Amino acid sequence: MTPQMKLGAFLWATGHHIAAWRHPKAHVTAGIDIDHYIQLARTAEAAKFDMIFCEDAAGLREANIGIASQTSRSIGFEPISLLSALAVQTSRIGLVSTASTSYNEPYGLARTFLSLDHLSHGRAGWNLVTSASPIEAANFGATGLKPHADRYERAREFAEVVTGLWHGKLGASGHDSQSFSVRDPLDLPRSPQGAPVMVQAGASDVGRDLAARTADVVFTAAQTFEEAKAFYDDLKGRMVSYGREPDDIKIMPGVSPVVAETEAEAQEKFEALQELIPDDVGVALLSSYLSISDLRRYPIDGPLPELPESEGMKSRQALIVEQSRRDGLSIRQLARHFAGARGHWRIVGTAAQVADELQARFEGGAADGFNVMPSYFPGELDAFCELVVPELQRRGLFRRDYEGRTLRDHLGLKRPA
Amino acid sequence: MTPQMKLGAFLWATGHHIAAWRHPKAHVTAGIDIDHYIQLARTAEAAKFDMIFCEDAAGLREANIGIASQTSRSIGFEPISLLSALAVQTSRIGLVSTASTSYNEPYGLARTFLSLDHLSHGRAGWNLVTSASPIEAANFGATGLKPHADRYERAREFAEVVTGLWHGKLGASGHDSQSFSVRDPLDLPRSPQGAPVMVQAGASDVGRDLAARTADVVFTAAQTFEEAKAFYDDLKGRMVSYGREPDDIKIMPGVSPVVAETEAEAQEKFEALQELIPDDVGVALLSSYLSISDLRRYPIDGPLPELPESEGMKSRQALIVEQSRRDGLSIRQLARHFAGARGHWRIVGTAAQVADELQARFEGGAADGFNVMPSYFPGELDAFCELVVPELQRRGLFRRDYEGRTLRDHLGLKRPA
Repeated sequence: MTPQMKLGAFLWATGHHIAAWRHPKAHVTAGIDIDHYIQLARTAEAAKFDMIFCEDAAGLREANIGIASQTSRSIGFEPISLLSALAVQTSRIGLVSTASTSYNEPYGLARTFLSLDHLSHGRAGWNLVTSASPIEAANFGATGLKPHADRYERAREFAEVVTGLWHGKLGASGHDSQSFSVRDPLDLPRSPQGAPVMVQAGASDVGRDLAARTADVVFTAAQTFEEAKAFYDDLKGRMVSYGREPDDIKIMPGVSPVVAETEAEAQEKFEALQELIPDDVGVALLSSYLSISDLRRYPIDGPLPELPESEGMKSRQALIVEQSRRDGLSIRQLARHFAGARGHWRIVGTAAQVADELQARFEGGAADGFNVMPSYFPGELDAFCELVVPELQRRGLFRRDYEGRTLRDHLGLKRPA
Repeated sequence: MTPQMKLGAFLWATGHHIAAWRHPKAHVTAGIDIDHYIQLARTAEAAKFDMIFCEDAAGLREANIGIASQTSRSIGFEPISLLSALAVQTSRIGLVSTASTSYNEPYGLARTFLSLDHLSHGRAGWNLVTSASPIEAANFGATGLKPHADRYERAREFAEVVTGLWHGKLGASGHDSQSFSVRDPLDLPRSPQGAPVMVQAGASDVGRDLAARTADVVFTAAQTFEEAKAFYDDLKGRMVSYGREPDDIKIMPGVSPVVAETEAEAQEKFEALQELIPDDVGVALLSSYLSISDLRRYPIDGPLPELPESEGMKSRQALIVEQSRRDGLSIRQLARHFAGARGHWRIVGTAAQVADELQARFEGGAADGFNVMPSYFPGELDAFCELVVPELQRRGLFRRDYEGRTLRDHLGLKRPA
């Protein structure tokens, strides 16, 4: 059989496009409408997606509350409660939630994800993040964002304790260090899939090392084939030093497709969305990606200024800076470009064109699958499922039905010993 | 209309009787069977219960892992994930979960409960506990259980921050103190019921003060009418000094009924359960209630020894010691007595006898309702719903249908301003 690509459906309130809330068909209170999410989860399951994926940040998402309320993406369910509800409204699709190693304790987090795993009969996954936003830090008593290296050092040990608890390998005396002290096993039996799936998205040097060591799935952002391929080869290469086989991690870049029956129609849909981006929202979002306070101090039609070294998302900053230099983009152009797909890869075209692009990255060794980030919900998820998925199935690149029961089964991951 | 009593269904794995797992009809893996919980929640909803109630402890429940595994009550879902799943499998019944102020952060806890509240369209409640178990402390990096007074001081401020977040009253500069620093409002709109319902169960002096100040519902343990009445009067009296009206709190003692068509049949069911209690399990459980390391050092047919002042559940210790002196019970007798209903009130009899007892406490001003703790599931919950609820309805003491949509509606609580 042809190797099969993996597909995630990244659910997010109104949609991934920054102006989704202004779309004529937008459901502006989608973030707190459980029926909306049930519908999306069932659509993705009917299309045989491997998993749905939820991000998380415990705080208002944008630096400016006025802008946050404009985008309506600041409003949404806490993802563990959301996915627990979706667990009993679906039967096969995987359920992956983001959770922070900076603002949780390993015993509580390990227990909650294992509980979701039992609720869903082996379909849970944890997307480990260290939380790069100073907004979250301010809600958890911190005096500021901890340095990148410190966050990752905590994350490394946190992941070790969590997997120790999941695998029942904590040892008789528990885990005891300066950061964490945990005594008991969990009050839940072993996971139906061995252990929940571990997802990571950190792309800095230390982030890649942590992923190479512990992740089952890596979610990443890459604009070009070359970027995607370089990341893919680098990460798979790092795994060797941790005694793992390349196939033990599935690398799934984000992709934001805009698909229609004809190319002209797809372009028209895309342009209509881009037109809806208010400049101040785009620039504010770009500022937050670059981890600097406010780009509005600079001329909007001028170039990106020299930036200080980031303590936020280092890899994202580098990616944006590189593109701005390469394509000679102004702040306004850059803001609009990145705001649309939030820094992720975008494909605008017919089902065949979208499938061609996905196939090229998949077969070119730049991806094991994709985390699909529809511009707005439910419209663009529906379009992907109705148009692109059947095209991928015809090409033998994607399953026509689930063969297993658990998320590990879908992803073709080994069951931990 | 006759005043109506409130009813909670306290769900707990196999059942509340310590030997429930040994019952011939026991479902021993009930704690991780979501279909089991869905069935229980729907049974309670069909009987028009105000709410289901879940306890929580992030650790193995008994001091001794061997005993914990024997009782099979150490195994179970984390309650927020459980109640989120039940939220979309029910439509009217309230959903109350316990969560600790010692091992959570207020921003995260407030957000999770408000998310459950939106998922369920206004049916969530939080049972605040300070966590008296050294077992939990050891899983969260603590070097031991914090003193009772310190735990309650943290709980008081924690509750203030949580309700501030729920009510949108945190102020522009957030909350900033030595214990907690929170900057943002929550990333969720106001609760459909104004705010999730606040439940408490602490019965010590400082616990009662906290409840009088902040609780909507108080769950309590009382063996005799006099104990229940004294607690009720004391708590309602304390509310005055906080400017609250007595009806602003619903006091709901726990009750563990064993009910059957005839009294003889009920007694037989009860005796069969009591027979199943292994002495070492009963004594270990009694030790944990008394917050002492192990009563097995003392002669099992002798009296309770003099005990050191507890830093655990002060009120529970006092209650047990008083009963042991009053009734001259040996350790074995006391263990069996308390193990059965875990220190709660027990009624064994026909529907009319059970209803008589509940009515007497309700009309005698010793309770606003009851948190029903069935000995084993689903059998004793079914029996209560089939036999006792219709009897209470005939007497005009309990609703025949829901009148409102939210938990506050059911409980007749004011909507917070």
